[in-house]
Amino acid sequence: MTTAFYPGSFDPITNGHLDVLVQALNVAAKVIVAIGVHPGKAPLFSFDERADLIRAALEETLPERAADISVVSFDNLVVDAAREHGARLLVRGLRDGTDLDYEMQMAGMNRQMAPDIQTLFLPAGTASRPITATLVRQIAAMGGDVSAFVPGAVHQALQAKRK
Amino acid sequence: MTTAFYPGSFDPITNGHLDVLVQALNVAAKVIVAIGVHPGKAPLFSFDERADLIRAALEETLPERAADISVVSFDNLVVDAAREHGARLLVRGLRDGTDLDYEMQMAGMNRQMAPDIQTLFLPAGTASRPITATLVRQIAAMGGDVSAFVPGAVHQALQAKRK
Amino acid sequence: MTTAFYPGSFDPITNGHLDVLVQALNVAAKVIVAIGVHPGKAPLFSFDERADLIRAALEETLPERAADISVVSFDNLVVDAAREHGARLLVRGLRDGTDLDYEMQMAGMNRQMAPDIQTLFLPAGTASRPITATLVRQIAAMGGDVSAFVPGAVHQALQAKRK
Amino acid sequence: MTTAFYPGSFDPITNGHLDVLVQALNVAAKVIVAIGVHPGKAPLFSFDERADLIRAALEETLPERAADISVVSFDNLVVDAAREHGARLLVRGLRDGTDLDYEMQMAGMNRQMAPDIQTLFLPAGTASRPITATLVRQIAAMGGDVSAFVPGAVHQALQAKRK
Amino acid sequence: MTTAFYPGSFDPITNGHLDVLVQALNVAAKVIVAIGVHPGKAPLFSFDERADLIRAALEETLPERAADISVVSFDNLVVDAAREHGARLLVRGLRDGTDLDYEMQMAGMNRQMAPDIQTLFLPAGTASRPITATLVRQIAAMGGDVSAFVPGAVHQALQAKRK
Amino acid sequence: MTTAFYPGSFDPITNGHLDVLVQALNVAAKVIVAIGVHPGKAPLFSFDERADLIRAALEETLPERAADISVVSFDNLVVDAAREHGARLLVRGLRDGTDLDYEMQMAGMNRQMAPDIQTLFLPAGTASRPITATLVRQIAAMGGDVSAFVPGAVHQALQAKRK
Repeated sequence: MTTAFYPGSFDPITNGHLDVLVQALNVAAKVIVAIGVHPGKAPLFSFDERADLIRAALEETLPERAADISVVSFDNLVVDAAREHGARLLVRGLRDGTDLDYEMQMAGMNRQMAPDIQTLFLPAGTASRPITATLVRQIAAMGGDVSAFVPGAVHQALQAKRK
Repeated sequence: MTTAFYPGSFDPITNGHLDVLVQALNVAAKVIVAIGVHPGKAPLFSFDERADLIRAALEETLPERAADISVVSFDNLVVDAAREHGARLLVRGLRDGTDLDYEMQMAGMNRQMAPDIQTLFLPAGTASRPITATLVRQIAAMGGDVSAFVPGAVHQALQAKRK
Repeated sequence: MTTAFYPGSFDPITNGHLDVLVQALNVAAKVIVAIGVHPGKAPLFSFDERADLIRAALEETLPERAADISVVSFDNLVVDAAREHGARLLVRGLRDGTDLDYEMQMAGMNRQMAPDIQTLFLPAGTASRPITATLVRQIAAMGGDVSAFVPGAVHQALQAKRK
Repeated sequence: MTTAFYPGSFDPITNGHLDVLVQALNVAAKVIVAIGVHPGKAPLFSFDERADLIRAALEETLPERAADISVVSFDNLVVDAAREHGARLLVRGLRDGTDLDYEMQMAGMNRQMAPDIQTLFLPAGTASRPITATLVRQIAAMGGDVSAFVPGAVHQALQAKRK
Repeated sequence: MTTAFYPGSFDPITNGHLDVLVQALNVAAKVIVAIGVHPGKAPLFSFDERADLIRAALEETLPERAADISVVSFDNLVVDAAREHGARLLVRGLRDGTDLDYEMQMAGMNRQMAPDIQTLFLPAGTASRPITATLVRQIAAMGGDVSAFVPGAVHQALQAKRK
Repeated sequence: MTTAFYPGSFDPITNGHLDVLVQALNVAAKVIVAIGVHPGKAPLFSFDERADLIRAALEETLPERAADISVVSFDNLVVDAAREHGARLLVRGLRDGTDLDYEMQMAGMNRQMAPDIQTLFLPAGTASRPITATLVRQIAAMGGDVSAFVPGAVHQALQAKRK
């Protein structure tokens, strides 16, 4: 049974992240969604909020696989964190060349440090390809309608956050 | 009569921005140059200084169309700001793939939020393609000669700023 | 009244081309869809077939603007052809960095030869961004279902072509 | 048990292809290496030669997994061919932005036609990232030493081909 | 005394090639301009015509260094050809990401085969960055004015070729 | 005798930087490694530490050319700094399209300001292409093994820094 490790900030989970998660569940039996915790960063949502939103998002979209994901935090090397959680696949989403250039650096250095951890990229879905969490946060902060870019639960959470 | 909205920081306007503005005036009868005001950012030039420099730059280059632009500030969503100013075209300049990857995210999300606002990209002119406002500021701060990269009025303003 | 010139092979028109055409009608009052005729190439559809499909596609999608397009052929320089048809805007669609690198070469050389013709790029719509006419032809030739990638009239024409 | 479908020309298999194949065996229990047969193309190696070289290459590199691959030919849609062979994963290698731009078109159209087939990209290994089969053929045809770019069996086959 | 090898088709030499050649003369004392001769290709200009145009172009632009170049043909591996001519530097021009992706493949494989030959890239000059020989040939064949894209001697040769 | 100027942060020197330095020594008789000092930045290693590590790295790798480099600091325009040190060549490494887009801006503006300084790019070596100093610092800070990414002396210095 293959387990995949899907690291990111997920601040918050967008339809782009969700699409990659659903695709990852096509590749692996279990997917560990790993929220990177960085002392220097001040996220919009706490770890617990982000974890709940990830579960709620999958529940909305693919309830039959909701039990196949777990949400964890990590603040060490991604390859070490993957190993600790028994995952041998490391999943990353790709939207364009700028993403790829960065991901090829990570994949090259990670493979050197941890040849036992296999990086794989999943192509952003056509509909969610333009979405970035940074723009979602900016648009939401200005009162823009992000309902088309995030799962329902996230849309509500963002609205609550603005009040 | 078509009105185009050309948003940016213009801190300060460079020959690259000016070239895009002149091209935008080939597409639309009126162009609104919109200076984004971000509380978190400490620009080199104030809004008024930047607005004056934009007008002076066009006056130097294309006096016959100087009356066809207006300069405004905005701190809300760019599509909302465009609508408020009666503009249906949203103009952005493109230099290379890195620009395009970011602009395709903006264009995709903006079109979703505001299908009535049409994004169009204008190719950086050959001569001004390498120019970035960030490098202009850095070079000017080190006493470098930026006269080839910015309109005359801007060159003087940068020199005055250094004294 | 602005007239735009939208050159391509349109062999056949895809939903990607159609999306760019609809966007071009947001920029210009009239759009001339110009089918490039190259002696060396053996297109799948004749000029007349392609012209009919372009009109049918717009009729399906944006009947209220069907009268605002005309379909012509050209075998000379695109800037000369645009001028001959009274168009001052030259429209091209952009999907990614590879497209942009080629289009920046064309735009740079065209602007040098014809400063009076203004090139503008329109971002591929999110849904139609992956579509290429080359892949549509290959998929259709193998009996694949291209209905999601081309207007209805084109889908029928491709099926008829296979019988 | 997951089966992956790895399509390509493999004319001949290079160390770049082999690296992707080995990575694919980290993701799936079985990998079907599918050689695309195109009437219009005149390959350097016949289908049988290419199939033998693929098997020999894996035998050299990862004998313990040699039984987990099969080599087939296909001349229909890649998603149909994958389905016929019971594969739900479609594997492609990525070297750079130019590869990605083409692969995102294929992935977008394939996912539309066959949502049940999951495309995943594997990053070219650092050492084999520059290798292309086209350059291998050109170099070998000029008597160049391609031993660093292809498995041993292929190197011998290329030398035999030149005699 | 360093000698650089600058390979290409130069069919014909454009202002882009010429700019790279002039830059190469800033790096090396001698530059060998090497015209690749491919049996399969039918060039517009013969080898001798191209060689004469290269010499004439440099004579027009940098007469003081005209004696520091030689023009040769080659039909073997570029690294072998460079060695045969005593050149240790291999010069290539770069315009954009698409160029780079191809050149990194060549550079990676060439360095593996010939660690003694040092590849270096020269950035396309701002003014000549959009120019490609393919577009120059197409434009000239349609009677377009390519005078801004090629040296004077080439412009005349193209015009003579059309008569 | 040609002197090249190789500017960067080198915080610390990685195998990627070292590979570019070794390649630069194939192009120029002398190479000045120039550490940019920016008041706003808080580097991991001091200038002296970085200078020592650069010398130690070359001593490990190419002792016979150790005397051909010097290490300097600079805080002014890179073209001015190069001139001050009698260097006419400005060397930069390239890994991918994202690097190139930034470097073409620098090269275009630098050539405009200092036509006497010749920028040249050196392709990242295949083995060191994924390496970035930013990731090296992050990995080392988390206790990861960076020994494959940096020269021996740097590996020890990073370990000492962590204690």
